[in-house]
Amino acid sequence: MPKPVEPAHHPYGPKVGALVERLASLPGIGGKTAERLAQHLLDCPKTEALAFARAITDVRAAVHPCPECFNLTENDLCDICRDPRREKHLVCIVEQPRDLLSLEATGIFPGLYHVLGGRISPLNGVGPDDLNLDALVKRVRDRGIQEVVMATNPNLEGDGTALYITNLLAEQPVKITRLARGIATGSVLEFANREMLADALRGRQAF
Amino acid sequence: MPKPVEPAHHPYGPKVGALVERLASLPGIGGKTAERLAQHLLDCPKTEALAFARAITDVRAAVHPCPECFNLTENDLCDICRDPRREKHLVCIVEQPRDLLSLEATGIFPGLYHVLGGRISPLNGVGPDDLNLDALVKRVRDRGIQEVVMATNPNLEGDGTALYITNLLAEQPVKITRLARGIATGSVLEFANREMLADALRGRQAF
Repeated sequence: MPKPVEPAHHPYGPKVGALVERLASLPGIGGKTAERLAQHLLDCPKTEALAFARAITDVRAAVHPCPECFNLTENDLCDICRDPRREKHLVCIVEQPRDLLSLEATGIFPGLYHVLGGRISPLNGVGPDDLNLDALVKRVRDRGIQEVVMATNPNLEGDGTALYITNLLAEQPVKITRLARGIATGSVLEFANREMLADALRGRQAF
Repeated sequence: MPKPVEPAHHPYGPKVGALVERLASLPGIGGKTAERLAQHLLDCPKTEALAFARAITDVRAAVHPCPECFNLTENDLCDICRDPRREKHLVCIVEQPRDLLSLEATGIFPGLYHVLGGRISPLNGVGPDDLNLDALVKRVRDRGIQEVVMATNPNLEGDGTALYITNLLAEQPVKITRLARGIATGSVLEFANREMLADALRGRQAF
């Protein structure tokens, strides 16, 4: 849930107030930190502040989902899909690009990924149609994929999404595994450490 | 001292790498937080990310030092200098605009401010000429200022700067006081809490 935006009151004026609000709406940034960051953006050389603004604009202009796996990329295909050394018949399914980054950081997964773009969550109005599932089914069917590793988050919605996908792929000759429960149920995958994730990848089990 | 900028390596591409670097160069933002913030700026609606970039650009275009006291402002004169209820013959001298904000937050100082723009620091190559001292001397002389309160940081350089200013104003019929040492020597003014600063303001002593 996004933090509510406070009304703009800043002794320097409304534009500084607006910047402090924007900074405070970032994840993990509180009011005091937002104030300090705004102050830094005022104190630093003007070229530096403008380069920061430009970096944000550039990123949003350049980055888009990979048409193959829905990872984010600045290229036609993402780095992983383009890499000829990756095992093409093994696909790891994750909810978000940041989960992919966490798994990639273990350095032990030789296959490709498929980013769902979320998980099935009726309470938040997210259904199967909101995820990249048609593309997944088509990919498994047309690309001779032999194993799909479920790496959705180890909680109710993540498990439910994995189960839904298992049913969706039931007709196809593909082995379905999931991350070993080295990761604690109820925790958030994004914050798991490297070792825990590496153990979970190595010990993946039949689903 | 600014943090060294890491070379751009990001799986999404160099533009995301550049944004992560910029974020990590902000005060108090480490590599992991920078990565999460960049991810947020990729995940959030594009309009929101662009509005953030715009907020930074707008602030740098709009904010400038007050010509009277060198506080930051988006107006001709800052809010404090424009306020007819402020005591015009009492001026509090601070190093940075953020110190002014901390003192203002106590709500007990009735006078105006003068922002030096730093403190005398030979080791960092900051001399008297780099501070807004000529304007201070002129202001004290021409505006009938009766009391100057030194609120430089309670450390060697801050005390040295206050002493330098005391000598500079020695010829003028102005009372010079300093913040009561309710604030611990060696600490940083910016992080002092409201009560401590309020005590220090109330108990200010002859210099």
